[in-house]
Amino acid sequence: MPHINFEPGLPGIRGPMAFSPETARPLNDLVNVLLRTNASHPDSTLSEGERELIGTYVSSQNDCFFCQTIHGAVASHHLGDDDWSLVKSVKQDFTQAALSDKLKALLVIAGSVQQGGKHVTAEQIENARANGATDRDIHDTVLIAAAFCMFNRYVDGLNTWAPENPDLYRYRAQKVAEYGYTHEDHYMPPS
Amino acid sequence: MPHINFEPGLPGIRGPMAFSPETARPLNDLVNVLLRTNASHPDSTLSEGERELIGTYVSSQNDCFFCQTIHGAVASHHLGDDDWSLVKSVKQDFTQAALSDKLKALLVIAGSVQQGGKHVTAEQIENARANGATDRDIHDTVLIAAAFCMFNRYVDGLNTWAPENPDLYRYRAQKVAEYGYTHEDHYMPPS
Repeated sequence: MPHINFEPGLPGIRGPMAFSPETARPLNDLVNVLLRTNASHPDSTLSEGERELIGTYVSSQNDCFFCQTIHGAVASHHLGDDDWSLVKSVKQDFTQAALSDKLKALLVIAGSVQQGGKHVTAEQIENARANGATDRDIHDTVLIAAAFCMFNRYVDGLNTWAPENPDLYRYRAQKVAEYGYTHEDHYMPPS
Repeated sequence: MPHINFEPGLPGIRGPMAFSPETARPLNDLVNVLLRTNASHPDSTLSEGERELIGTYVSSQNDCFFCQTIHGAVASHHLGDDDWSLVKSVKQDFTQAALSDKLKALLVIAGSVQQGGKHVTAEQIENARANGATDRDIHDTVLIAAAFCMFNRYVDGLNTWAPENPDLYRYRAQKVAEYGYTHEDHYMPPS
C-alpha cells in the first residue's frame, strides 16, 4: 500500500505525478529532454534506445521494479529487442552484453554515479572518451544516471504499486516512444 | 578538474547548467516548485527554510560540499540562522537540533530516501503523521530528498569545482531567496 493517498489504480510514478502535477511537469520535461530531445543534439552519439538502457540499468541497480520494467520496455522498443533479451543481459552483466565498447564504458560511469557522484574516476572518463564518447555523451550519462537515482527513490520511497503483466509495459512503451513522457492518461491500455 | 570542459570559474552546478541549458531549465523549474512555490501550497506545513534544510541534510549525507553549503546558506537566510549554527547542528545530529518533532520525523524519512527508496518504513510515515505532517509534506519530503540525490550526483559525478569562501554562498543565498533558482548570471557576486 502506498505511504500516502493516491488515486487508486495508477501504476508506479503515475500515482505521485497525479497527486502533484506541479512537480510532474518539470520531471516530465527533464526526461523528455534527456531521453528524447538530446538524442538529436549535434554533439550526441547516444540514441534514444541507448539512453533508455542507461536509465534501465541504473533502475535495476537501485532495485526499482516499475522503473526498470517500463524503461526496459521503452529501450527494447527502440532497439528492436522484441523478447527483451538484450535488456535482460544488460541488467545481468552488461560487460557481456551485445553493446558497443563506448556504451559499456558509459554504463561503467552510470554504475559509479548510482553508488555516489564521487565514485566516478578520471580513468572511467578517459576510457569512455577513448571509445568515442563526447563531452555531451558523458554529461548526459551522468545526468541520466543521477535522474534515475531520483525517480527510483520517488517511486519506491512512497511505496507505489506496480503491475506485473509485461503486456501493460509493452503497450505503454509504444505510446511513450510515440508521444513522449507526460502524466496524461491517453497512453494507458484500454480497460 | 571537472571531468568535461566547462566554462571556467562557474561554481558547482552552474558549470553543467551553462554547458546544458536544455536540462538546466527543467532542473531549475523543479527546485523552484519544490523548495519555493509548494511552501505556500494549501496542504503544506513546510516553510521554504525547512525545505532547504531537508535538501542540506541529504546533501551532507551524500558528502556534496557545494550543495550542502549553498542550500545550507539559503536555509540559514530563511531561518534567521546568521552564524549557521542551526544548519551545522542539523548536519551533525538533527535529533539534537532545535527543530520541531514534525521536522525531525521528516528528516528521518529524508535520511531513508538518501539510502534508497525502500528504506522508508510505514512506521517512519506513521510517526511523521502523528507529529502533524500532511500527505503533501510527506510527498514533498520524499521528492526533495530524491531530487538532492540527483543534484549531488550531478555536481560530484562531473567533478565540478566549488569555492570555499562562505561569503560567496551568503551572497548567493540572498539572491536565491529573492529571485529563485536560475542559471543566469545576475546573482553572482561582483568581481
